[in-house]
Amino acid sequence: MQGFFFAPNFVKKIRLKSFRHHKPRPKKNSLIVGKAAIINALKEGKALERIFVQRELNSAETEKVMSLAKNSQVPVNKVPAEKLNGMNVTGHEGFIALISKVKYFDVQQIIDYVVEKGEAPLFIILDGITDVRNIGGIARSAYSMGVHAIIIPDKGVGALNDDAILTSASALENLPICRVNSLMKTVDDLHLNGIKVYATEMKAKKNISECNFAEPVAIVMGAEEKGIFPALLKICDEKCKIPMAGNFDSLNVSVATGIILYEVLKQRSNG
Amino acid sequence: MQGFFFAPNFVKKIRLKSFRHHKPRPKKNSLIVGKAAIINALKEGKALERIFVQRELNSAETEKVMSLAKNSQVPVNKVPAEKLNGMNVTGHEGFIALISKVKYFDVQQIIDYVVEKGEAPLFIILDGITDVRNIGGIARSAYSMGVHAIIIPDKGVGALNDDAILTSASALENLPICRVNSLMKTVDDLHLNGIKVYATEMKAKKNISECNFAEPVAIVMGAEEKGIFPALLKICDEKCKIPMAGNFDSLNVSVATGIILYEVLKQRSNG
Repeated sequence: MQGFFFAPNFVKKIRLKSFRHHKPRPKKNSLIVGKAAIINALKEGKALERIFVQRELNSAETEKVMSLAKNSQVPVNKVPAEKLNGMNVTGHEGFIALISKVKYFDVQQIIDYVVEKGEAPLFIILDGITDVRNIGGIARSAYSMGVHAIIIPDKGVGALNDDAILTSASALENLPICRVNSLMKTVDDLHLNGIKVYATEMKAKKNISECNFAEPVAIVMGAEEKGIFPALLKICDEKCKIPMAGNFDSLNVSVATGIILYEVLKQRSNG
Repeated sequence: MQGFFFAPNFVKKIRLKSFRHHKPRPKKNSLIVGKAAIINALKEGKALERIFVQRELNSAETEKVMSLAKNSQVPVNKVPAEKLNGMNVTGHEGFIALISKVKYFDVQQIIDYVVEKGEAPLFIILDGITDVRNIGGIARSAYSMGVHAIIIPDKGVGALNDDAILTSASALENLPICRVNSLMKTVDDLHLNGIKVYATEMKAKKNISECNFAEPVAIVMGAEEKGIFPALLKICDEKCKIPMAGNFDSLNVSVATGIILYEVLKQRSNG
């Protein structure tokens, strides 16, 4: 059990290492405007949520922004000029970046740290969850229940904005978040690290209490209506479900995550 | 386990019995205006959320409304004229009633029904939970996990309004709700029926997995910040907590309820 108490310290440690030269926390909805400023921010390692680049631009400097962004795993959206003009800032030259409210970590970095500590990794993967309150609620439970990191894709997920942070009771600011370009590739990487990937599905035959969550695991939570993306579901190792009592077999995704994490914690503390 | 599948039928049955002469479901935010109309509605057994009576009024008809409302367990709020005038309806004569969006049941009626079916009663009691989304979320989990009824006080609880119903994925329209004048008295009544009342508290020594939830139980969930009202906490039989993994021992009340119900269901299906 002792291992489960490390999260806050762990975060501090990683942060100090990776973001030693960070400036104070940015204010709400802060933007970085113009390509030179964005290039500087990327070079300084500033945490960016996303960069919007005007679709028509195609200069050497655009390439430079794209390349730096790729290295820093910051998603770039190519958008029409109207989108940028709508952000109500002047002099954007076709480049606006959104400063991130959370710090992002590399999945491998977290795995290495956790394994080095002699613990069994525990990840939550969010697939297609767009409701920011659900994301916040999941982060809150995850942080309380000893999850090492939440893995999200860089597209098709709700923004980790003020609402999400508020619902998370600030857990989103403390729990490591890994933002990845492809969940499919991430599942491959997890497999290479000996981590079993469970998919939660209402139609699954296996109950969560029948799974072995004491081993290194990542658990994929899908959107309530659509479930998990079929190709992703296919490469998961096992499917599992929460037992229900009636025909109304529908739980909120944040409640479902809490229940699964309770089962994980129970198994790990008994083991 | 079979017993857990009965909720929807059960609701239908009770409804048919008690509300056979009901008119079609009222529209959003419907009001009944004026004392004669309210007296009629009460006599017809129409489900009312609450009646607002102008504070200064004190006629025989006021007494009649109060008395009929008491018999039907509809709360009456004595309010200043401004409150009534603010509801933007004319001719209220000091009396406005809010039509209920959910149907309310009597605790004893539910207990008798459940016991007759040979099942162990399972109730959730909400104390001081004002966030309507949390109430909706709790109802959704409760309905999925086979809770027989949610018990709420007639004051100091969030309204079971459209937002709550939406968050509950319509569970609030199907799961029996018991609205009581005093939770203290209700706990006494539950005791007289041989139902053990558990209080959830973060500081409790006992984990939920150490409790015997296979026996008839009611579980009190308190507001996240304030917890359970001290006098109520005192008359509960036992305190229990959800084990956490870190210092950040805070779960959303709707997630916490889901976890406890999962533990109950697990114990009951094993037993």
